Amino acid sequence: MIPADLHQRVGQWMSGVGPDSDVVISSRVRLARNAAGCRFMARAGADERRDLAARFAAALAAVEPPLDYLDLESLSPVDRHVLAERHLISREHADAEGPRGVALSADESVSVMVNEEDHLRMQVLRGGLDLGAAWERAAALDDAVQGRVPYAFDETYGYLTACPTNVGTGLRVSVMLHLPALAMTRELQRVFNAAAKIDFVVRGLYGEGTQGHGDFFQVSNQKSLGRSEREIINNLEVVIPKIVGYERKVRQDICAEHRRQVEDRIFRALGLLRSARLMTSEEALHLLSQLRLGALIGLVSDVDTPTLHRLFILSRPAHLQRLHGRELDEPERDAARADFLRRALGGA
Amino acid sequence: MIPADLHQRVGQWMSGVGPDSDVVISSRVRLARNAAGCRFMARAGADERRDLAARFAAALAAVEPPLDYLDLESLSPVDRHVLAERHLISREHADAEGPRGVALSADESVSVMVNEEDHLRMQVLRGGLDLGAAWERAAALDDAVQGRVPYAFDETYGYLTACPTNVGTGLRVSVMLHLPALAMTRELQRVFNAAAKIDFVVRGLYGEGTQGHGDFFQVSNQKSLGRSEREIINNLEVVIPKIVGYERKVRQDICAEHRRQVEDRIFRALGLLRSARLMTSEEALHLLSQLRLGALIGLVSDVDTPTLHRLFILSRPAHLQRLHGRELDEPERDAARADFLRRALGGA
Repeated sequence: MIPADLHQRVGQWMSGVGPDSDVVISSRVRLARNAAGCRFMARAGADERRDLAARFAAALAAVEPPLDYLDLESLSPVDRHVLAERHLISREHADAEGPRGVALSADESVSVMVNEEDHLRMQVLRGGLDLGAAWERAAALDDAVQGRVPYAFDETYGYLTACPTNVGTGLRVSVMLHLPALAMTRELQRVFNAAAKIDFVVRGLYGEGTQGHGDFFQVSNQKSLGRSEREIINNLEVVIPKIVGYERKVRQDICAEHRRQVEDRIFRALGLLRSARLMTSEEALHLLSQLRLGALIGLVSDVDTPTLHRLFILSRPAHLQRLHGRELDEPERDAARADFLRRALGGA
Repeated sequence: MIPADLHQRVGQWMSGVGPDSDVVISSRVRLARNAAGCRFMARAGADERRDLAARFAAALAAVEPPLDYLDLESLSPVDRHVLAERHLISREHADAEGPRGVALSADESVSVMVNEEDHLRMQVLRGGLDLGAAWERAAALDDAVQGRVPYAFDETYGYLTACPTNVGTGLRVSVMLHLPALAMTRELQRVFNAAAKIDFVVRGLYGEGTQGHGDFFQVSNQKSLGRSEREIINNLEVVIPKIVGYERKVRQDICAEHRRQVEDRIFRALGLLRSARLMTSEEALHLLSQLRLGALIGLVSDVDTPTLHRLFILSRPAHLQRLHGRELDEPERDAARADFLRRALGGA
């Protein structure tokens, strides 16, 4: 069972606070690991998977601070999607079959998927730009687990993983950026081109394509091989502040030069959120994104970013279904979403 | 000079009351006349035009109840467009050059253009479906003017006019319909096809094409020759109630079967009107049209149709410029319009 009130709160990392959180939503460190002497997931049979899940569940329950292990096979599809919407498991992991699970810290800053693409996918999330702290927590967890379940490791290649792109450090480092001003002025492509040149890849909120929903973009490293963990993190710590500075500058510029247009967009977003009776996920994300910009540049005073961060997550389909205590079809969800957001934002 | 407070009120015919005014905004009767023994406008020189204007101005000032004659040459372009936006003169008449004018009754139910396409274009407007009353007023005015300035009339063809389509009775009868439900359900084409079969033509709010702005459509007779005035009016009095009944039925149906979608559209319209900082004429008309439907089906309780009718007219470009006491360019007008509508509708 996932906690009964999970659909009413968000994890600490999504609380809207943290370094540079005007532009950086969150920082994420992910390590891919596999148990030594076991077949990778594509080849592992049901018994082997069950055995792996049990070994890792035991190991993860024993680390300090302890993690809660959830057996995904025993959760409803809605609850599994709640976890995916909270960025605690991948959508693939939610929809997969067979013995698999996730271990979570109470504040949701740590989540460890068991039997996803690799036997182990350890993730640490932090609010704002805070890769160093995320890395330290991930490294400590990595050491603690490795003491209990030895990893597949090669002296030449490093950590062995199911997909060659993860071999080596097994590390993926990413930050989630909110770039509404750059999106408004169509300057995003320059950011993406600059990121691509130094081997970073830019994707949307849930990893889909490069078209960010609601102006949210993930920037992550492309290569995990041939560089040390510290190097990978350092590279991102050099690049991200430049993007942050660029977004901040454009926010100032548009407020100075196109104030009416910016106000129009933001107050229209607020007006729609406070009045619509049907709203898709995509539209909600887009409008909340505009409102987040409005709150940060001081145009909208009665909504703060922690509230908006909560609404980003709680208005997603599975969260709404949990709020209503039953499965909802798409028109029902669109109605439930509009009602939820309207009330949360003081609409009529 | 046009009255100083003209931009703050609307004519009696636009006050939102009248028979069947849930669907019929207004009824209009127009008579085209030319002075006997004078050249039509296309051939008349400046002196002849000036002479015609003077003769008709004198005749129109002498009728009972009296009309106010405005010399359009002495009005500013903004004031001329104020008259056009109030449907008292055509846009062509506003933008033309040379001696020309318009005679108006105080309540704006009667307007007579002098030296437009014909020497005289007499118009009577009534709120709702009230063609009989409009026709009686027009006929009385016609008789009164004819007693002072004899018309060009032919025993075979009837009244002679600049354009052959107006020869005969010189009569055009039209009603302005608000058909948001038929527009929403895409059933308008059936209405238009039915109207075309019986020689009626359907156009938009300001006569443009058949694409009505904000779901407003003018239905008028196509032929003025070979039928008596009474026949033309009777035909429209048979057709219009059918369209009215059809629109009413669809309004009921969509409320019963698609209540959420209808509510969503209408409350979004209200939300945008109460929050936007920039708004084009076209969007304002569209949103006010949705709101008018909302008020009529009882969804929106704090806005009534008389208020909406006022806003339709007062939010047009020339009215806004008069409100601000100066010429405004398009972005300024869009800002002024958004501000005006937001305040009028209780927005923040």
